Amino acid sequence: MALIVQKFGGTSVGNTDRIKNVARRVAEHRKRGDQVVVVVSAMSGVTDGLIKMAKEIMPLPSEREMDMLLATGEQTTIALMAMALHAMDVPAVSLTGAQAGIVTDGVHTKAKIQNITPKQVKNHLRQGRVVIVAGFQGETAEGQITTLGRGGSDLTAIALAAAIKADLCQIFTDVDGVYSADPRIVPSARKMKEISYDEMLELASLGAKVMQSRSVEFAKKFGVVFEVRSSLNDNPGTIVKEETKNMEDVVIRGVALDKNQAKVTLVAVPDKPGVAARIFKALADASINVDMIVQNISHGSGKPATDLSFTVEKADLLKAQKVIDALKKEVNFAEAICTDKIGKLSIVGVGMRSHSGVAARMFETLAREKINIDMISTSEIKISVVIELAKGEQAMKAVHQAFIK
Amino acid sequence: MALIVQKFGGTSVGNTDRIKNVARRVAEHRKRGDQVVVVVSAMSGVTDGLIKMAKEIMPLPSEREMDMLLATGEQTTIALMAMALHAMDVPAVSLTGAQAGIVTDGVHTKAKIQNITPKQVKNHLRQGRVVIVAGFQGETAEGQITTLGRGGSDLTAIALAAAIKADLCQIFTDVDGVYSADPRIVPSARKMKEISYDEMLELASLGAKVMQSRSVEFAKKFGVVFEVRSSLNDNPGTIVKEETKNMEDVVIRGVALDKNQAKVTLVAVPDKPGVAARIFKALADASINVDMIVQNISHGSGKPATDLSFTVEKADLLKAQKVIDALKKEVNFAEAICTDKIGKLSIVGVGMRSHSGVAARMFETLAREKINIDMISTSEIKISVVIELAKGEQAMKAVHQAFIK
Repeated sequence: MALIVQKFGGTSVGNTDRIKNVARRVAEHRKRGDQVVVVVSAMSGVTDGLIKMAKEIMPLPSEREMDMLLATGEQTTIALMAMALHAMDVPAVSLTGAQAGIVTDGVHTKAKIQNITPKQVKNHLRQGRVVIVAGFQGETAEGQITTLGRGGSDLTAIALAAAIKADLCQIFTDVDGVYSADPRIVPSARKMKEISYDEMLELASLGAKVMQSRSVEFAKKFGVVFEVRSSLNDNPGTIVKEETKNMEDVVIRGVALDKNQAKVTLVAVPDKPGVAARIFKALADASINVDMIVQNISHGSGKPATDLSFTVEKADLLKAQKVIDALKKEVNFAEAICTDKIGKLSIVGVGMRSHSGVAARMFETLAREKINIDMISTSEIKISVVIELAKGEQAMKAVHQAFIK
Repeated sequence: MALIVQKFGGTSVGNTDRIKNVARRVAEHRKRGDQVVVVVSAMSGVTDGLIKMAKEIMPLPSEREMDMLLATGEQTTIALMAMALHAMDVPAVSLTGAQAGIVTDGVHTKAKIQNITPKQVKNHLRQGRVVIVAGFQGETAEGQITTLGRGGSDLTAIALAAAIKADLCQIFTDVDGVYSADPRIVPSARKMKEISYDEMLELASLGAKVMQSRSVEFAKKFGVVFEVRSSLNDNPGTIVKEETKNMEDVVIRGVALDKNQAKVTLVAVPDKPGVAARIFKALADASINVDMIVQNISHGSGKPATDLSFTVEKADLLKAQKVIDALKKEVNFAEAICTDKIGKLSIVGVGMRSHSGVAARMFETLAREKINIDMISTSEIKISVVIELAKGEQAMKAVHQAFIK
């Protein structure tokens, strides 16, 4: 008998028929003798409908009241899900985030979980019930309703799994698992049987978009083994867990292409202390997230100067441009070249640690394809390169072929 | 500076524009320096939509889960109402029933309020905020979400008014106040400036339908003065309060016609002890509410027998007929005559206590109109007669003319 947390997203519970389907799936698990906690999101469309009403009233509603409003979405789903299980004669009970003991800080619309006291969850499990918990929401110690922000339901599931020491946490989604590359671009991409937290984190932050980083970070911190799998079929998914020795046998776990980046190059930046700090402080003050930073010796004038390139999200490019323009006099660089016609291609794998020559092989592969590398950035288990956007998919296929086949 | 509780029903908050209108009204009150607590229902249609989804899943959903589901309706309204006040620069905060300290018993879908500890309500009022409370809902001492059943939002408003010792509780509705008769039937009907709890109770249970009896009973018990008034205009409504001396100057406060009754007459019921008890026990066991009961000497056979008539709600007539048929052998009455072609006409007024001849005047009036009286039932402040349904409105007009003008 295992204790399992199963999380279903908004699409999986998008209408009453789909809720019944999920209930059927949960009921099957329970028949095998498992204890099941189900975490659900708001039915797809419901949250958007609530936000639309709020915007009709006020362009920028209070965050406390947004939480009060949005929390009704998951509360609706949990009640309907409990009914759907009852209809199949499965004992079940619904709990709001607050009732499930999920205590957060008071940062409305993006609260952090502070602790979980799942007394009611455990009581109901002991009494043989399936426990259905509203994802995405919690309560402050003072009894204020909060929500956890994007990807909050995944976080609820993983945090609950940690709190009740579940044997497994299953994240049901609309993909079959985590792939070695986006199968829409690389048809030969393979579904991974397992992947380490760190690899998953690199992939999550690289635009693989299966899960938000913070849920994976939480799982890593508390050692929660979880599985990403499809709510549409019974195929086994991808298990995400602590790195094991044999994971290193695989050099590269996955290849990701992020088309959502833009690049700024400052030409001939005076090479003196404090200049880089000045630039990136200004960008941070404008809440612009800088991803890669590369600095080269400048080819230009005789003075000691460097070229400084960095990438930001495409959506932030205009804002970044303004910040940079405002600094031009002070910093005294020659010019700023901006482009959003770039792609960031990354390879990820814990095997890199024990296999040499990985970067060389990647660069050779791109050279063979006549693809120029603009910027390079590496971590212990990742190599990222910035290339021309138009060649992104070609590059991804070639690199996938070279490492994963 | 007064402390006021204002309650707005589902129609008044039926869409975001209406919510803004209500907010404007609340804001005006606050400008005058009043402290305001607003109690709101679910937006009209929302509760029905939720019930529809529940029924799609299961014909008879668990009552606990229905409460979990339906409580989202008011929670949505309170958040939107708070936002609408914010948009007018009025400090406001929303509270669920639980957060407002409304503690109920555990009878889901028709819970009773056990006590109210409005700590948060008072705190927010002290800090100058309008407090918006979700009507219709509460929480058990164990933290289960409950709802109060039909008319629950009125009850929330009145109970809160009692708990925070409000100066006035205003129930905004789609009628202008309480009328001496239904103005659609009696065009000369007058809106009353004030009415006693007891008169309101008699009228509520007589199909005047402005408010549920239990809210009025609660107000009477705790001495909460409340006003029934329209959410569509600024006309003063009807104040409902403890009986005052000068109220007795008015003999008849109102005339009500209940078309929703049916009559059963058992002919020649053996006149021996225990027979009536047997009959009404059987009806009660079938959860049939019996309203009026009248017993006459039977005109039939030589044996000691009586005719026994009683009224039930129209919807219960078929069920009552079955119960009676099943008793025929045991009780040995001659026949059962059932009809739903009746109306119950009632006059209500605390002035009856001090004015004699009221019944006589009512009966004379009906006689002049050639309207036959089927059954009569009286209380200290009420006289009800059952008459032919087709003559109900004619009778109502005549009686209203005779007493109220």
